Amino acid sequence: MGVGDGPVEAPEGERIADGLTVVDPAEAAAEVGPEETVLVSGFGGVGYPKAVPEALAADGRAKALTVVSGGGVGDEIDTQLFESGSMARRYPFQTKPASREAINSGTVGFHDRHISRVADELRYGGLVDADTAIVEAVSVGEDWLVPSTSIGNTPAFVEAADRLIVEVNAAQPRSLSAVHDVYTRKKPPQREPIPLVDPVGRIGSPEIGFAPSKLVAVVETDRPDDPYTFREPTGIDREIAAHLASFLSAEIERNPLLGARVPLQFGVGSTGNALLEALSAVEFGDREVVYFGEVIQDGLLDMLDAGALAGASATSLALSADGQERFFASIERYAEEVVLRPADVSNAPGLIDRFGVVGVNSAVEVDLYGNANATHVGGTHVVNGIGGGGDFNRNCPIGIVALPSTAAGGEISRVVPMVPHVDHTEHDHSVVVTEHGVADLRGLSPRERAVALVEVADPAFRGDLRAYRERAERGGGNVPHDLETALSWHVEWGE
Amino acid sequence: MGVGDGPVEAPEGERIADGLTVVDPAEAAAEVGPEETVLVSGFGGVGYPKAVPEALAADGRAKALTVVSGGGVGDEIDTQLFESGSMARRYPFQTKPASREAINSGTVGFHDRHISRVADELRYGGLVDADTAIVEAVSVGEDWLVPSTSIGNTPAFVEAADRLIVEVNAAQPRSLSAVHDVYTRKKPPQREPIPLVDPVGRIGSPEIGFAPSKLVAVVETDRPDDPYTFREPTGIDREIAAHLASFLSAEIERNPLLGARVPLQFGVGSTGNALLEALSAVEFGDREVVYFGEVIQDGLLDMLDAGALAGASATSLALSADGQERFFASIERYAEEVVLRPADVSNAPGLIDRFGVVGVNSAVEVDLYGNANATHVGGTHVVNGIGGGGDFNRNCPIGIVALPSTAAGGEISRVVPMVPHVDHTEHDHSVVVTEHGVADLRGLSPRERAVALVEVADPAFRGDLRAYRERAERGGGNVPHDLETALSWHVEWGE
Repeated sequence: MGVGDGPVEAPEGERIADGLTVVDPAEAAAEVGPEETVLVSGFGGVGYPKAVPEALAADGRAKALTVVSGGGVGDEIDTQLFESGSMARRYPFQTKPASREAINSGTVGFHDRHISRVADELRYGGLVDADTAIVEAVSVGEDWLVPSTSIGNTPAFVEAADRLIVEVNAAQPRSLSAVHDVYTRKKPPQREPIPLVDPVGRIGSPEIGFAPSKLVAVVETDRPDDPYTFREPTGIDREIAAHLASFLSAEIERNPLLGARVPLQFGVGSTGNALLEALSAVEFGDREVVYFGEVIQDGLLDMLDAGALAGASATSLALSADGQERFFASIERYAEEVVLRPADVSNAPGLIDRFGVVGVNSAVEVDLYGNANATHVGGTHVVNGIGGGGDFNRNCPIGIVALPSTAAGGEISRVVPMVPHVDHTEHDHSVVVTEHGVADLRGLSPRERAVALVEVADPAFRGDLRAYRERAERGGGNVPHDLETALSWHVEWGE
Repeated sequence: MGVGDGPVEAPEGERIADGLTVVDPAEAAAEVGPEETVLVSGFGGVGYPKAVPEALAADGRAKALTVVSGGGVGDEIDTQLFESGSMARRYPFQTKPASREAINSGTVGFHDRHISRVADELRYGGLVDADTAIVEAVSVGEDWLVPSTSIGNTPAFVEAADRLIVEVNAAQPRSLSAVHDVYTRKKPPQREPIPLVDPVGRIGSPEIGFAPSKLVAVVETDRPDDPYTFREPTGIDREIAAHLASFLSAEIERNPLLGARVPLQFGVGSTGNALLEALSAVEFGDREVVYFGEVIQDGLLDMLDAGALAGASATSLALSADGQERFFASIERYAEEVVLRPADVSNAPGLIDRFGVVGVNSAVEVDLYGNANATHVGGTHVVNGIGGGGDFNRNCPIGIVALPSTAAGGEISRVVPMVPHVDHTEHDHSVVVTEHGVADLRGLSPRERAVALVEVADPAFRGDLRAYRERAERGGGNVPHDLETALSWHVEWGE
């Protein structure tokens, strides 16, 4: 397979190697059985296959597909395949209204697993038995392909699937090969320490290898990604960013872990992108600032262009359309500082811990003791999935949950007595930041945490939170709760 | 400091090096201020300092100590210091009625953090500012000590504290040095991959180094540990073990991760020890079976003696008194197969993941979607703390939660609609086992998980669980809940 055996020569010549036959998307889609398990490339809304899923949805034969992606993908998969009634299951992350609605209505099954674990589970079984991988590439040969704007879990997908369909997308620059670093972890007991000592170092090759017999179809497309649109930062985003900047400024001065290098990670989406603004207000001095996260967002390009970032490691170029254009225009230059890795490397618990990453992730809500719900509104209705939030929150020495103190125009508090769904426990992250300040939970008892967290809640809810705290403490316990009313706010909001 | 720079010569001569002055425990205790932060050795109820904490409790000056241990310690610390009113805070794990009561009444603050994270947090700040470390050793020199029956976070404690008091315990064999492998992780950005490729390999030295100026007192003791007493396995333990054995037998046949080597971890305590019996019923064939966990319990000695285990790695010899006697009588022989490491190595997320450990841990209760409460009865009253349960559950490719289906003589179900405290989320572990069978949650949607988990609940509660499930599903959602009644079982049990 050649993967992980060291760098492979960058492929020369045409995007599609001589000897490979190109078929139209409908013909490729016909290779997929109506109840198959299909693994699709894509992460952060980019690098996903477009023409074959669309053809599959149009074809209408598929009735009960299981679709597994690395992370977020586009409408061809998470809208069209859902609306065509083709879906039975969807793992482990999605971002579209159609997929969300089908999952929350119970018509499509969802399995919400930490991103870092999915590659092993596909390779070695337990999650699904994979049939066909459909993968977007910038070039393909008899036994290799070069991924496009994301890597995600594509190396594991290509390995785990029986058959492989490759979409070669002419809208994705071929020179994207310059940013890829595909390292494949061996199977235990042969598995070695991931040999990455520099967060933005390189240990792999630009290509993903595969057994030639797997390749059943090659399709040509010429369609750009339809990536996330980042909203403009709001006033509240800016207030959160200012508090985050104050915290980081003080922390880098006092924490020996950050004395020489500050490795950062920011969560996927508009909030994460907006909070990158915080970094411009931090005096890093002569510390090296690097990004070791899951996705490259637009804010990171600004920092790279300004010379404020020594480099960035992720698994996806989750840029806006404008950001992609900017990146594509200067790939060779950016490739000196940007590297994309498989998601089981970008999100590896051992690396996050080894590098000492400072992670900033959002949540739907936090409770008085610091538990965070990052996935399920009302405790029941999934938004996107946990993604890599748990990989980072749990393994960062300094995990920060950053969120506005309210939702629904101030009607709903995001600091609540008890979260009705827990994705990050009180044992995981260290700090909660809202537009009202910083609650540094390190070394605090649960009762002290509750006092600190009330202070970062919206003032309109602080009285009720204090009343809950006092009522709860009457029952005693290390983590006091009044179970009769712990979820009453959510009951009321749900009515 | 010499730590982590490679093997150091095993110390020769007397237990206490020439030139060091021995003082009595009261004199050593007088070195500790009344509101200090004190770091004590000890993990799994063994290797903790005995005489100085006892003298500190008898002295009565201490009024507001913060005491941080690696894991569980003895009565001299968690009973006497609590009963003498010396305590203000206790981190991050305790096991005694006196400590538990003080924490649950809110008079002593508790901070419940993953074991693997504590070493870094002590070294680099954030958790506490440490004053004095009190450490049990089998021998001590001017700038080194050899720990006794546990390592835990002692290397970090010795590094983080300003002052060091060493108790040299003549009841602990000096030859315990043969089992110790102290590897100290460097501070990022110099931190390297932990160079352990064999779960029972050695990468460090038997000693912990320290700056000579830190050593303020050496005390001699001659008192054995007062370790856990394991209860005899119950009939229910044996039924759980039988289901666990069935699962493991099938899994090793189908899972390529376990094709050549089966690395196992079992949780601390009687349930964990009892479940080790399951392994005698599994046909491992020519697979190498190794233990990579947190504590060595009696059941592992049986396996080592029977040749059923190639080796065992942990941070503590959490043996019964009989088990210690048996181990001490043949240390040199056991040392060929047994190694103790610092807790940030024994529990390192990167190693658990790298080796592909199969972890078996218990819980207070699980809910219909697989979330587990491992720490707080009724969601409020702490038992012991999370310890290393999260380190393993979260990073094991196959994490198994094993628990009896009921408590309180069958009056209380341990499978509940919603757990009121979450330590291990639905995203973490893979399998739940009770005396009624195995719920393999891999690849299941939350609604499917609920069906599977009802089947491993006690039959007396299955009807009510199904009724909850149906009521919850009427509200829709990926994780259906009826928030008005989600915690009603706990409310009733608490009355």
